[in-house]
Amino acid sequence: MSAQTKFMLDESRMPTHWYNIAADLPVAPPPVLHPATMKPVGPDDLAPLFPIELILQEVSTEREVPIPEPVREVFRLWRPSPLVRAHRLEKALGTPARIYYKYEGVSPAGSHKPNTAVPQAWYNAQAGIRKLATETGAGQWGSALAFGGALFGIEVTVFQVRVSYDQKPYRRALMETYGARCIASPSNETNSGRAVLAKDPRHPGSLGIAISEAVEVAATHDDTKYSLGSVLNHVLLHQTIVGQEAMLQLEMAGDDPDVIVGCTGGGSNFAGMSFPFIGQQLRGGRKRRIVAIEPAACPSLTRGKYAYDFGDTAHLTPLAKMHTLGSTFTPPGFHAGGLRYHGMAPMVSHLSELGLIEARAYQQTQCFEAGVLFARNEGIVPAPEANHAVKGAIDEALRCKREGRSEVILFNLCGHGHFDMSAYTNYMAGNLSDQSYDEEELAMALAGLPSVPA
Amino acid sequence: MSAQTKFMLDESRMPTHWYNIAADLPVAPPPVLHPATMKPVGPDDLAPLFPIELILQEVSTEREVPIPEPVREVFRLWRPSPLVRAHRLEKALGTPARIYYKYEGVSPAGSHKPNTAVPQAWYNAQAGIRKLATETGAGQWGSALAFGGALFGIEVTVFQVRVSYDQKPYRRALMETYGARCIASPSNETNSGRAVLAKDPRHPGSLGIAISEAVEVAATHDDTKYSLGSVLNHVLLHQTIVGQEAMLQLEMAGDDPDVIVGCTGGGSNFAGMSFPFIGQQLRGGRKRRIVAIEPAACPSLTRGKYAYDFGDTAHLTPLAKMHTLGSTFTPPGFHAGGLRYHGMAPMVSHLSELGLIEARAYQQTQCFEAGVLFARNEGIVPAPEANHAVKGAIDEALRCKREGRSEVILFNLCGHGHFDMSAYTNYMAGNLSDQSYDEEELAMALAGLPSVPA
Repeated sequence: MSAQTKFMLDESRMPTHWYNIAADLPVAPPPVLHPATMKPVGPDDLAPLFPIELILQEVSTEREVPIPEPVREVFRLWRPSPLVRAHRLEKALGTPARIYYKYEGVSPAGSHKPNTAVPQAWYNAQAGIRKLATETGAGQWGSALAFGGALFGIEVTVFQVRVSYDQKPYRRALMETYGARCIASPSNETNSGRAVLAKDPRHPGSLGIAISEAVEVAATHDDTKYSLGSVLNHVLLHQTIVGQEAMLQLEMAGDDPDVIVGCTGGGSNFAGMSFPFIGQQLRGGRKRRIVAIEPAACPSLTRGKYAYDFGDTAHLTPLAKMHTLGSTFTPPGFHAGGLRYHGMAPMVSHLSELGLIEARAYQQTQCFEAGVLFARNEGIVPAPEANHAVKGAIDEALRCKREGRSEVILFNLCGHGHFDMSAYTNYMAGNLSDQSYDEEELAMALAGLPSVPA
Repeated sequence: MSAQTKFMLDESRMPTHWYNIAADLPVAPPPVLHPATMKPVGPDDLAPLFPIELILQEVSTEREVPIPEPVREVFRLWRPSPLVRAHRLEKALGTPARIYYKYEGVSPAGSHKPNTAVPQAWYNAQAGIRKLATETGAGQWGSALAFGGALFGIEVTVFQVRVSYDQKPYRRALMETYGARCIASPSNETNSGRAVLAKDPRHPGSLGIAISEAVEVAATHDDTKYSLGSVLNHVLLHQTIVGQEAMLQLEMAGDDPDVIVGCTGGGSNFAGMSFPFIGQQLRGGRKRRIVAIEPAACPSLTRGKYAYDFGDTAHLTPLAKMHTLGSTFTPPGFHAGGLRYHGMAPMVSHLSELGLIEARAYQQTQCFEAGVLFARNEGIVPAPEANHAVKGAIDEALRCKREGRSEVILFNLCGHGHFDMSAYTNYMAGNLSDQSYDEEELAMALAGLPSVPA
């Protein structure tokens, strides 16, 4: 085991452009629709929420989108992130597979989220915006945008899903250290929040509700824009720096991945790692297996319907075609708060429909078991979200062992679990159980999907 | 500001040896004494506590001590750590100084402590030891040794100072995730602990008491050795990988430090960064300013007496000559738990007596203020201990501004604050106050120092 462990890129080799998979698609994805007219939305419809540069990125079909130099300057604080060969984990599993993980937990906020928070804050600052509203689940996104806001003088307000707000108080402290304001959602600060609280004052919240609150604040305040940490094309675009770096680093390692594994909530971390590789395939390159891992308690890709749906619970957003459990579906309060979203990114959903990716769902206890095994061998304690990817990679490595194949497995370790240690405490104490959604509620939520003319 | 930000060493350039400052001292440090005989301790006296290889390192005068390959293999998971030019902080301060920080928070446990935990665990494992007992303050050391133990199959028991055990439950969760057992100290598990509890059942604990408990467990169990996270020569030795890497990285940056700043509790993080530079000076190289920053509430270097004292409260350890507040002194419960130790490493104390280092003490609120400024510019939220170094570096940079000097300032950002966010919450809410020790208690503790024949 004296072989190289870490593959580091010099910052001079950090990608200068984001990779836009829209340029290489064999079939364009279905348009996003305005719910009132059922016509495709235009830039004007989105202008109250986003600055024009981000709207243009949302619909761009240019293959390469330049990363602004001031954004690259900030990225150099931690990027390029390491690619690590998991020698010790391989040995513990007794697998002939070679496992690599890209570690995004080295960012100041501890996850991949600053990859889009920094450019979003910068584009807003360039457009003269001084206030941003957003939502967060576990808090990775909220703390990343708080960090981005601090860098460019933007006031950030974060609506955090209440179950996570209560479970993870240190995340709020992190947001506040960066100067942001953090509010438990559903809150009394918006009509959307008040409507939910009127029905259930103890509602645990959901990403769908928190999105409604943040969108409402942006839509009703001229000086405030909205920022989303996943799902949208421009967010996925910003994450492609991860996969591009990994590609260069694997070249340094002299390896090429056979299987790429990522966890999927809204889809941005998964897309960031996989899209550059899928793009190679679409341009005539090698076909690799791309495996999305989602929580069994919120399984949009494996159990959702591919249909037009709202991005939020109060139906303030446009309609996007995606794998969805229904915008009124409230997932149970499991620990991977970042994966508790009813829908999957439209672009990821589209690729799934095109047969370019596979999906699997796991329960949380088996993911924590994988995370503890990982920590005791590789040192890093993964975030509960990342544990899904760890479990996926381990299962692929064990398959390689059974089949006697020395495949190359790559996964994105999208964040560390330092803010999620209460979940580990519960797991170690045997107090963590698997969570199931209510089948009836899912059926109702799916039955309530908006009807869209073909 | 398009200049380079991060200076990364390839893992092939990671130091192969630790640097031992004992080889270059103009005057040997005073010997460690056995409290019963007042004679210098020999290897046999230490054999119940440490494996022979570590005892030999403790007294070695070889300049270069090889780092075993299995230890280097583990280090490659995160080492070499980054050296970062603090462009944004410089700009925020408007200083002509160039500020660099070495970031040790990239380690799995989030601090510099694994630099010695991993070799200590390895040397013990090589000697056939299967159990280690140790103490921890804030928990950085305890979680580092838990990590080291997990890698080499050693059961680790950690006595954690109660005030930190209560303030920082996630640290315990981290230790348990790595498979260690963590006990609040003073505890009912040892005579030392029971004696303290008998006098004060609500005693907040101190590192001195926790050391007594861990030493007692090791001394009374044949199958258990003791491990210390700072203070001793071999621990400081293991940390010199930090300063050696920084030296290579500053060469890459084309800069040479005028001032080196570190925070000091037991002294290992400070020593790790500064000793390689002090060694250069002792061998005829350039003289640089070396500044130790300590907490005003536990100021061993600036207010302590240079005298022989016990390392622990129950007087189970040998006597070492060091700057000490007295082994019975209990510092107030401020947040930088890692700096709450009554004594300073004998080697750091010796260098202070030789006039090779300066020392300053800061209150905690001004350190948190510095930490928040750092976080909002550089992204990383420092540990409360590290905030002392941040504050020291900022003060040097502001001096450069006043004096119009573009000096090069280097400091060790020894850990991140992700497990210390409740301290930040208190600071932001205005609930964090400066702490003072009791002057009478200090006088009594100093009066109670053991008398040692000249």
